[in-house]
Amino acid sequence: MITSPYYTQQGHGPYELIDIGSLELEDGGVIDDCHLAVACHGRLNAAKDNAILVPTWYSGTSKIMGEVYIGPGRALDPDRYFIVVVNQIGNGLSTSPHHQADPTRFPRVRIGDDVRAQHSLLLQHFGITQLALVVGGSMGAQQTYEWAVRYPEMVRRVAPIAGTAQNTEHDVMFAETLCEALTTDPAFADGRYAASHEVAAGLKRHAKLWTVMGWSTEFFQQGRHRALGFADMPAFVDQFMTGYFAPMDPNDLLAMAWKWQRGDVARHTGGDLAAALGRIRARTFVMPISHDMFFPPADAERECRLVPGAEFRPIESIDGHLALFGTDPAAMAQIDRHLKELLANPA
Amino acid sequence: MITSPYYTQQGHGPYELIDIGSLELEDGGVIDDCHLAVACHGRLNAAKDNAILVPTWYSGTSKIMGEVYIGPGRALDPDRYFIVVVNQIGNGLSTSPHHQADPTRFPRVRIGDDVRAQHSLLLQHFGITQLALVVGGSMGAQQTYEWAVRYPEMVRRVAPIAGTAQNTEHDVMFAETLCEALTTDPAFADGRYAASHEVAAGLKRHAKLWTVMGWSTEFFQQGRHRALGFADMPAFVDQFMTGYFAPMDPNDLLAMAWKWQRGDVARHTGGDLAAALGRIRARTFVMPISHDMFFPPADAERECRLVPGAEFRPIESIDGHLALFGTDPAAMAQIDRHLKELLANPA
Repeated sequence: MITSPYYTQQGHGPYELIDIGSLELEDGGVIDDCHLAVACHGRLNAAKDNAILVPTWYSGTSKIMGEVYIGPGRALDPDRYFIVVVNQIGNGLSTSPHHQADPTRFPRVRIGDDVRAQHSLLLQHFGITQLALVVGGSMGAQQTYEWAVRYPEMVRRVAPIAGTAQNTEHDVMFAETLCEALTTDPAFADGRYAASHEVAAGLKRHAKLWTVMGWSTEFFQQGRHRALGFADMPAFVDQFMTGYFAPMDPNDLLAMAWKWQRGDVARHTGGDLAAALGRIRARTFVMPISHDMFFPPADAERECRLVPGAEFRPIESIDGHLALFGTDPAAMAQIDRHLKELLANPA
Repeated sequence: MITSPYYTQQGHGPYELIDIGSLELEDGGVIDDCHLAVACHGRLNAAKDNAILVPTWYSGTSKIMGEVYIGPGRALDPDRYFIVVVNQIGNGLSTSPHHQADPTRFPRVRIGDDVRAQHSLLLQHFGITQLALVVGGSMGAQQTYEWAVRYPEMVRRVAPIAGTAQNTEHDVMFAETLCEALTTDPAFADGRYAASHEVAAGLKRHAKLWTVMGWSTEFFQQGRHRALGFADMPAFVDQFMTGYFAPMDPNDLLAMAWKWQRGDVARHTGGDLAAALGRIRARTFVMPISHDMFFPPADAERECRLVPGAEFRPIESIDGHLALFGTDPAAMAQIDRHLKELLANPA
């Protein structure tokens, strides 16, 4: 167990830690007393039909979802909806490697495990049997697709943003380079470091890979990094990108990356992606980001065509994948507009 | 000095090693007895006005240029032109770190040093004072631009393919991740390894980064790696990408990467890119590749607008940057068509 100053109520709260009991895992093994860190916004109405589920992305927590996507007047409006942001397993707030006596023995967790854990949470803790919407970005989109395929009768609308239902070979390789940036730091010591800061060099290399793939060539060409307040690329890498990743726990990141690499709804249908996506009953808006370098629009559009009645709603932003961070207000406005239309849509 | 089985006449010949004497370097220092490895195709005519110069890219040698770009009936037709392929300094055939008694003390070499070395070679060894064309891809494009800006009266036509006149911050960061893949391998030992194969782990990570950035998401989505004869992504990475880079010398690669990162014709004009590109008198076809992830069309087009009379001639290929390897025959046909038109153009 590693005591981290990062994964705390001060840093990422408020959230509630809810024990959903033991979670049997798809790849074998079990998490006893699985805790999900949950941040709720708004109130569940009497009919219990105004719930929105928001899963989190790689490295993200409920905090950024609350700050960037949720608020009065927004599509995700706590005055109208009961919005449940669930931190994914392994993200450092929900049950994660760094909480364990021996983090290196944390079991393999898949997207499907998270979604079953969230399903259990919603039913048992909140009594929710219908979701007005599931919406998430990146790994949040992977969980969103998994929800729509696994529980088609429970989900009325879904909006996968900047993510796919079946991970691509290219994306798997990108994630592999991220993992290797961490694991090849001698201080990583096969996961047996005593504190995250010991793995600073690996975490910085990991941040540089995200700098190359997370934004876009246009983002840097047009000086968006300077517009965000950083003098130049080294300052952007050191202060923003490394500053963001440096306090995170490497074993936690690796648990998420393993899960990300294996996201695939076709596990339900013997590898048949069309059959899996054909199960979806939710009204679906597929929302890739125009300049995303690893979840590009073409990959999203290919899947969109396999979802009954789905609409392709790309977000235009040179901020690329990390427009998810909310750096581009115009992108956020597009996302809000699409989500409002989707929510206004009878489903 | 490292004896390499890779950088040989058997592996990359035939080429001639030409001693151009001492080369003073822009960043200080000098290369005594600078040798350029040169592969010539065709014959110089009596007027000495049919010469074409082809510089090489990162990791490439004259061999691939001869095999993929030069031949009877092609734009670079040895029956019509005298085609001089000059291996860049540091590429393992021309004077390079691995030839030195202490490779770690090899001086910093810039694009401008290569171009001055090539200029000296052409004048003193061949008596060439006019070039019908300079054409190169990637770092070859950087050298091409440098030629057009530095010696505007000597160059009649230029075709920079998949490269820029001024390197971008994004591209510098990508190259930095490549360098770190090599230098963080403990076996690299600050450049004091005894043989390249000792740095196999670093060279493989370097190959994986090239896998992610060198092709495109569409390339993998459409199964081009399988069409090229590899069962899946791991086979493609192990056999093709790692197979390609594994025998190379890490210090040589790092010398080229340092040079690549600093390619910038605006060094001639106090940082004014428009002024530098405005000096060009050559007929210019700017030829980025549509799906290039680090020398993208938008960056090339921005520069194209600054070159007097230049035409923007993008190459459509989902093979991305590494379409330069000749993997996509349709891309090669486009390049040939543009080059033939350029060569037919009075200049």
